[in-house]
Amino acid sequence: MENQYAFSADERAAVYHSIFSRRDVRGQFLPDAVPDEVLARILMAAHHAPSVGFMQPWNFLLVREPQVKAQVHGLFAQAHDEAALMFAEEKRETYRRLKLEGILEAPINLCITCDRSRSGPVVIGRTHIKTMDLYSSVCAVQNLWLAARAEGLGVGWVSIFDQPALQAVLGMPAEIVPIAYLCIGYVSHFYDKPELETAGWLPRLPLADLIYYDQWGQADTQGRESLTQEVRTVQTALQTQGIAPR
Amino acid sequence: MENQYAFSADERAAVYHSIFSRRDVRGQFLPDAVPDEVLARILMAAHHAPSVGFMQPWNFLLVREPQVKAQVHGLFAQAHDEAALMFAEEKRETYRRLKLEGILEAPINLCITCDRSRSGPVVIGRTHIKTMDLYSSVCAVQNLWLAARAEGLGVGWVSIFDQPALQAVLGMPAEIVPIAYLCIGYVSHFYDKPELETAGWLPRLPLADLIYYDQWGQADTQGRESLTQEVRTVQTALQTQGIAPR
Repeated sequence: MENQYAFSADERAAVYHSIFSRRDVRGQFLPDAVPDEVLARILMAAHHAPSVGFMQPWNFLLVREPQVKAQVHGLFAQAHDEAALMFAEEKRETYRRLKLEGILEAPINLCITCDRSRSGPVVIGRTHIKTMDLYSSVCAVQNLWLAARAEGLGVGWVSIFDQPALQAVLGMPAEIVPIAYLCIGYVSHFYDKPELETAGWLPRLPLADLIYYDQWGQADTQGRESLTQEVRTVQTALQTQGIAPR
Repeated sequence: MENQYAFSADERAAVYHSIFSRRDVRGQFLPDAVPDEVLARILMAAHHAPSVGFMQPWNFLLVREPQVKAQVHGLFAQAHDEAALMFAEEKRETYRRLKLEGILEAPINLCITCDRSRSGPVVIGRTHIKTMDLYSSVCAVQNLWLAARAEGLGVGWVSIFDQPALQAVLGMPAEIVPIAYLCIGYVSHFYDKPELETAGWLPRLPLADLIYYDQWGQADTQGRESLTQEVRTVQTALQTQGIAPR
């Protein structure tokens, strides 16, 4: 179909490349400095995320001081010990062996937050679903993550923290929500697949099984929807071409 | 700096182009059908979002039946009336004039959900911050949105609904969270800027003012951080080149 707003084939491929080759990086950070120019670009990408009622509820708290990083790492270590005990015994050792953060190794740590009071109490689009502002800050995270991938930067999202303790270490008032604590830096390599998939923790789900039609639970078990076959074809084609991970 | 994982300049530009030219589309949908192949690609993009503990908590509920769309539109209309009364009187008329959804016009509606029980009760990375699974589904939304922009498709996120009513109309159990109700289709045009910015509802915030250093509230009011000037330079350069909106 003729569509003047579609990107060229090469441009589209670049966007998909960023999406399919983005990884949650934990163990491959290099100490190389991230130039301000590159950091500025990925922050601009984050700042141009969609936000409910255009409230732009985010702040970007850059953490580079070794002392602050060390405190954050301490919080991680404590929460990680607590977390291990929550897993069934047969999974606990596997859990403990996983590398789940790169706080000290990554030259840049960045906490993306949500200030729920930004732009006042009534926000267009947040009148009924109150979590919409949190979701806006998550969109900023994902924009930054994809831009970072295009810049050759790895990003890892660390979420194993006691939240009030993290807020305290970062000097954050209780009403500011730390949405994502990100480790950012250049990397020795990107993995082909998510590490948890490779480690056999969980498999990639078949996309066609996740699609419902017009009502929840109405799956295309008979293969009558033309989309079902197309999803399988696209999945195979992207994998065969090495664009999406197998 | 030499970086073998960075995309080429053209590829990077394409990724930024998708980020900066993405819009929340409400009023510009065309009735043209979206080919299954294109829909399959943007769903694949969503499915390759990061997810906490690789739980992939999302489903994709496609809504194409006019009757279901009409019911969803009815829910929007009711919530929208309620919402108008929440705004101060001087903003109420402006609010009422805004076009905030394209449910009936867009050929595809898509509800992206979060199944919090996917992969069991204990999830790596969700042990302490319980909202992480919701955030994963939001990342899927943003991946789809950027892929859609590259395909020349508009996407609009509608959030003015009573959530239990929306779940009922879509046949969704109470424990499944409808993260985003999206309208998707080709468009007559994309706006240069967010509509709420153009309408004077709120201004774009200066990015440099949103950055803190090592502690919450520690802003670079003295302009001593080299990043501050770089952020302004990058913002101006991207705007001058017509890459980011002014």
